[in-house]
Formats: sequence, structure tokens, C-alpha cells
Amino acid sequence: MAIFTNKTQIRVRYAETDKMGYCYHANYIAYFEVGRAECLRDLGMSYREMEDTGILMPVTEMSVKYLKPAFYDEVLSVRTTITQVPSVRMFFDYEITNDKMELITQASSTLVFMNAQTRRPMPPPKRLLKALDPVAV
Amino acid sequence: MAIFTNKTQIRVRYAETDKMGYCYHANYIAYFEVGRAECLRDLGMSYREMEDTGILMPVTEMSVKYLKPAFYDEVLSVRTTITQVPSVRMFFDYEITNDKMELITQASSTLVFMNAQTRRPMPPPKRLLKALDPVAV
Amino acid sequence: MAIFTNKTQIRVRYAETDKMGYCYHANYIAYFEVGRAECLRDLGMSYREMEDTGILMPVTEMSVKYLKPAFYDEVLSVRTTITQVPSVRMFFDYEITNDKMELITQASSTLVFMNAQTRRPMPPPKRLLKALDPVAV
Amino acid sequence: MAIFTNKTQIRVRYAETDKMGYCYHANYIAYFEVGRAECLRDLGMSYREMEDTGILMPVTEMSVKYLKPAFYDEVLSVRTTITQVPSVRMFFDYEITNDKMELITQASSTLVFMNAQTRRPMPPPKRLLKALDPVAV
Repeated sequence: MAIFTNKTQIRVRYAETDKMGYCYHANYIAYFEVGRAECLRDLGMSYREMEDTGILMPVTEMSVKYLKPAFYDEVLSVRTTITQVPSVRMFFDYEITNDKMELITQASSTLVFMNAQTRRPMPPPKRLLKALDPVAV
Repeated sequence: MAIFTNKTQIRVRYAETDKMGYCYHANYIAYFEVGRAECLRDLGMSYREMEDTGILMPVTEMSVKYLKPAFYDEVLSVRTTITQVPSVRMFFDYEITNDKMELITQASSTLVFMNAQTRRPMPPPKRLLKALDPVAV
Repeated sequence: MAIFTNKTQIRVRYAETDKMGYCYHANYIAYFEVGRAECLRDLGMSYREMEDTGILMPVTEMSVKYLKPAFYDEVLSVRTTITQVPSVRMFFDYEITNDKMELITQASSTLVFMNAQTRRPMPPPKRLLKALDPVAV
Repeated sequence: MAIFTNKTQIRVRYAETDKMGYCYHANYIAYFEVGRAECLRDLGMSYREMEDTGILMPVTEMSVKYLKPAFYDEVLSVRTTITQVPSVRMFFDYEITNDKMELITQASSTLVFMNAQTRRPMPPPKRLLKALDPVAV
């Protein structure tokens, strides 16, 4: 179940293609990161701001299904979904569609909130929780 | 069960670090590709050669567990394992250990054999099957 | 002297930062490529289209001055300038400014028009010449 | 004039190719960085160690001539040359040859020694100077 969704557009760069003529599969991982960043920005707390307040969010799990290739210069839509209120962990789902509206990639990832100083797990910032669940917090 | 294993060493480049001070998580995906290439080379059929004979191997699934970070200039060991004789699909497992011998990443991926001309799935090259299963083929 | 100019905005991705906390210097090269692509699109002939008609444009020279660093999540402005009507070679100049309007990078590059089949140099497409110099062609 | 030279081998990864079938031109910049790192390691002071002692070396200028393309799976030789004893600036030249011994890329770069805390320029570490010029220092 989605509790928050962001949709961002990314154009495939020449740098991101490979000799197969496809967008190289590792580059989607960076696209997902852009999706997360825009999702958090929409929630009123950019990831840059989060790092500036001493919270890092390393990725601990990532799984991707590549359904169809993406090509140079295509404008992809990255739909990033938050499926539950985060605790120490935060989950994101992703769907990428191409400019023909075909679903080409599905993915999900787990991140942890980490104290930048101690490099230990920590609870999510109150402001983020409030943005995601205005009633409960 | 492993039917073939390759171990390759990769040193983390500065280009691959991020502002967290870690090896950026998408770069492991390229390390796995290097692992696969060395694995196939060991089997007597390099991936370059495979493409030269008209066979592409796009990745269709990838899942990664990031257990510990990797750092700049560390020499990582990528252990790539083939777990079964391939059909149209080929499965690879990966384990990365750092220079303290700690397991830092576990992953698995699915690839398909694809005709470069038609971009349709196809059976694996006989030579590869023979290398993996000298008796059965 | 500028005969055509395009201005494009690019946000620095986390993937593009390094452990120094800066945008890694090789990534600007990909930003310049985005600038060129948008410049050509503005001229009515996208680089994708050019490749589709059998013309490749490899880079043969590139020089960059890094004046100030760029940081994660900054929105950079890439100004791409065509300084002369191309022959077999095409020249582009670049200036990147950060969101404080500071000039952070200056660069120039040379590309050649290359026949995709023969991989030999060739003259630029008429359509591009016409777009750049409506009178002369 | 060379006062120190290192030669390092790098195999082109699939991740580094582009749809032209070449090693994408920005990736050489990362190869040069690997060359510098190996050069400094040879001199007895790895770049990792230098950063650990609070010295960063950002790149301030880079210029590259792309003479011939590099291809997937080729083993390239990166020859990195220090041409003079560094002051606040350090200069490196680079030559890349492919496995047919053809010179494919020539480049040069300028870096500065920078205090990691203050982010101000500083003189090079004595140990590096000594390694480069045992008599003078």
C-alpha cells in the first residue's frame, strides 16, 4: 500500500548506454536514488538537508526486475513509492516506464537511518514521520 | 550448489566513492559484471567472444544485500558462482569480501541468452554447456 | 564568437559525488555531453536522430578547467556554445555555473562527424549546417 | 622530462562502453585517477594515506586527446608520468596504449594539495618531495 508517491522524469544519457545499445543496468540504481531524493524533497525534507543534520541513509538491500530495455535519449518516468511509515529502516518501491508508457523496470530497496558521527542506526527524523503520518506523531 | 566458481580482485576507485565515504552502491553491479566476465573467461568462452558470435546476455533480475560498506582503495574479492547448467536463463551468485576477509555484499542475478540480431531469447552456446557439464552434453 | 548557445540545468546526483564531498571531476564530461545533446535538439536535429541516420560523433579532444567544486543536489547550469560552423570537426565550448551563479567549470571539446558503417570522417549533415547558417548553405 | 613513471593495466568493463561500441570518453578520466593512485603508491605514499593525513588533491585542469577508441575487454596500459617536483600544484601526464601497443589517448592534468579541514591550498607532504627528489630536500 502506498502512503506517498513521487513521479520524476529522467532522460537517458549517452554516458549511461552500453555496447548492447541499452541503458546499462547499473544506472537504474542511480535513477532510483534520484527518485528517492525527489520523493523526500516532496515531503519537505530533502536528503541533502537530512545529511546536513547528521543523518545518512545507506542502502542495505536492493532488488530489480529488468522487464524491457531503455534506450539513449528516452525520457523515463520513475515512480517512487513509500509503502509504510519508516522505523530504523525505510522501504521504497520503484517503477520505471518509458515514453511509450511501457513498464520497463520494477524494484524495491531498504535503507537505514544512520548517525553520521557514530555510524550507528537511529530512528528517522520526527519531521519526516510527521510528513508521512500527520495524525499519529 | 556451485558447479563453477571464479574469484577476482577489484580495487575501489576514487570515482566509485560517494560523499558518505563509501563505495557507491550501484558500483557493485559493475563489479558483479566483472566477476561474470572473469568466470566465463575461466570457462574458456569470454563474454567478448560470445558477443562477437552474436549472443548478448542482458541482465533480467538482480538482487543485492549490502552488509558492510567498502572504502576507497580497498582490494575487494568478488566470488562469482554458477549454480546450475544454464538453459535460456543463466544464474550467477556473488559474494564480495573486503581485505579483512569480511563478507560485505551478497547478490544474485539472472541473465538471458539473446540473439543479437533478432533480440529474441535463445539457448546457450554448446561450448559453454560443454565447459560446465562435460559429461551430459 | 558564439553562433549558437543552449542552457541546460542538471542536478548533481549522489552517485556523482566522491569522498571529498565534491561532484567527481569525470562526471562533468557527461554533463557536457548532455549540454551538447540539448544544443543539437534546439537546432532541430537531436543527436539520437543523427545516430539513427548513420552519423556518429566521437569526441577527439576535451579540456576542462575546474574553478570551484560542485556539491550534491546543486542545480548546475550548463551553457553550451557552438563557436563556428562545423566542417568535419565540430567545436563546443562549455561553462557551468552553480546555483549561486558562480562560474565553476570552463571547458571546450572537439568532435568529428563519422560514418557509422565505415567509421571514417564525413561532412556534417546538411540540415545541421542549414540550422546554423541559413544564408550560406 | 619525466622524473617518475608508473605503468598500470586496466581492463575495459562493459559498464564503461557506450552505444557506439567504444569505451565512453569520460571513463578515461577515472583511468587517469587509477594511474595517479598507482604512481603515488609506487612512491611510497598512497593517495589513501595522503587523505588520511588530511591532504586532499582535487583536479583543477585536465586535457585529453582521444586518438583511437578503446573497446570492451581490452587491457589498456596507462603510463602516468610526473614531470616536475610539485609545489602547491602537481602535474601528471598520461598515455594510454591498447593491447596492440597503439597509443590511443594522451592527457595531462593539474592537481592542488589542499588542507582537508580548511580547504585551502598547502605545500606537498615532505615525504612525497623526498621520494621524488632525495637530494634536494
